[in-house]
Amino acid sequence: MMETAAQEFTILVTNDDGIFAPGIRNLVEAIKDLGRVVVVAPDKPQSGMGHAITIGFPLRLNKVPQWMDGVEAWSCSGTPVDCVKLAVDKILHRKPDICLSGINHGANHSINVIYSGTMSAALEASIESIPSVGFSLLDYSVEADFSGAKIFARRIVEQLIRHKELDRHLCLNVNIPAVDASLIQGIKVCRQAYAKYEEEFHERNDPHGRKYYWLTGEFLNFDEGDDTDVWALKNNFVSVVPVQFDLTHYALKKTLESTIQW
Amino acid sequence: MMETAAQEFTILVTNDDGIFAPGIRNLVEAIKDLGRVVVVAPDKPQSGMGHAITIGFPLRLNKVPQWMDGVEAWSCSGTPVDCVKLAVDKILHRKPDICLSGINHGANHSINVIYSGTMSAALEASIESIPSVGFSLLDYSVEADFSGAKIFARRIVEQLIRHKELDRHLCLNVNIPAVDASLIQGIKVCRQAYAKYEEEFHERNDPHGRKYYWLTGEFLNFDEGDDTDVWALKNNFVSVVPVQFDLTHYALKKTLESTIQW
Repeated sequence: MMETAAQEFTILVTNDDGIFAPGIRNLVEAIKDLGRVVVVAPDKPQSGMGHAITIGFPLRLNKVPQWMDGVEAWSCSGTPVDCVKLAVDKILHRKPDICLSGINHGANHSINVIYSGTMSAALEASIESIPSVGFSLLDYSVEADFSGAKIFARRIVEQLIRHKELDRHLCLNVNIPAVDASLIQGIKVCRQAYAKYEEEFHERNDPHGRKYYWLTGEFLNFDEGDDTDVWALKNNFVSVVPVQFDLTHYALKKTLESTIQW
Repeated sequence: MMETAAQEFTILVTNDDGIFAPGIRNLVEAIKDLGRVVVVAPDKPQSGMGHAITIGFPLRLNKVPQWMDGVEAWSCSGTPVDCVKLAVDKILHRKPDICLSGINHGANHSINVIYSGTMSAALEASIESIPSVGFSLLDYSVEADFSGAKIFARRIVEQLIRHKELDRHLCLNVNIPAVDASLIQGIKVCRQAYAKYEEEFHERNDPHGRKYYWLTGEFLNFDEGDDTDVWALKNNFVSVVPVQFDLTHYALKKTLESTIQW
């Protein structure tokens, strides 16, 4: 009688820059010997998509042949969060052992976590009790040097494999400074800095004289703490912020209960 | 010499169902005598858009004449979060005194807060230190009866105007049961229930024989607490969950610091 083989350790990889971005390729290169790697990523850039899901349109999945030796890869017409949902239901037919997202081209520290498709994919996995990590390099360039990021991404994934039972909803927001690996001071567990963007839309006129607006913004950090991700990155540490999907503001809940007679 | 007139109390209203949805009209009817109301809402449905912002395309803003007597209304080609950003920068040219989002057609309790364009618009306002409330009625129908929701939406806004200085990032996720107003038991401040969707994509074939997938899912509540929004709504209370944009999981941060030698 045949015994059922133990399930292979399965790593789902996604991102928000799209399946043909260098960042996701570098991430897979860094960790591909640690298990069976399945890539399910958007077929086009999806930066800034936050936790968007596709409700009003159906989704497509297409196998991407020869994406990388020994790696099964699929492109998806939806958002990063759609990719995670579809991968579990229609490709893996089970939950992967871990979900990795990135490596994003550009920072996702502090308030960026809210807008980031990279981090929303990771957070979606954690809702499903799949431990997850989103990786971002502080370099927007398509020609960014991922060599330092690869070393630290691998180190973090190895640590999580070693400490499997930390938290069933574990989700880490990892940002890596854009400096040579030799200059990185180490890994620092942080809280999310309080920062925001000061918007300034650029107003233009189309050839028909009608106005349109481009979103731009200046990043403003209001948080002087030395326990934040912004501080860590400024000081050449890799920042690791554990994130959660319970948005309840418990302190404010108490205040509301004691202050207002509804 | 002329003195600068005190600025009128200004209420920014948005939603994710689009500017022509009945929900937003009902919300404005409920509160329009409380200040100067400016509506800036998506020009088409944007449900499930989460905290998405528009980066790769420019945005359009169009004034909507005669939307409602005495109310300035604009449609925007972007997401709910884009609407808030554009309204502050290009329409109001200052921060409104409060931002209201909704009334959403359908529930945004528990995990829905993460996917909800309605709540992401409110959360975006709170990042900008604009007190905000997202309202949702537990009825998806376009013909939903908003009469109970209107009473409670107004009551909550009045309370916030009375308690202006509670928290500069105040953001409330308000859900209203789909029952007659006379059956509503009151308002309950709650925490977000731990619940999720069990996805099941419907697979179909297009006329050319290629597969596509529709997102569907069954809502599963894993949280038996009587202090959650799900409990409150089941018991015919209006649920009020204060939400925050600091996603740091502080308990897990401590665990990570003490468990792992990075």
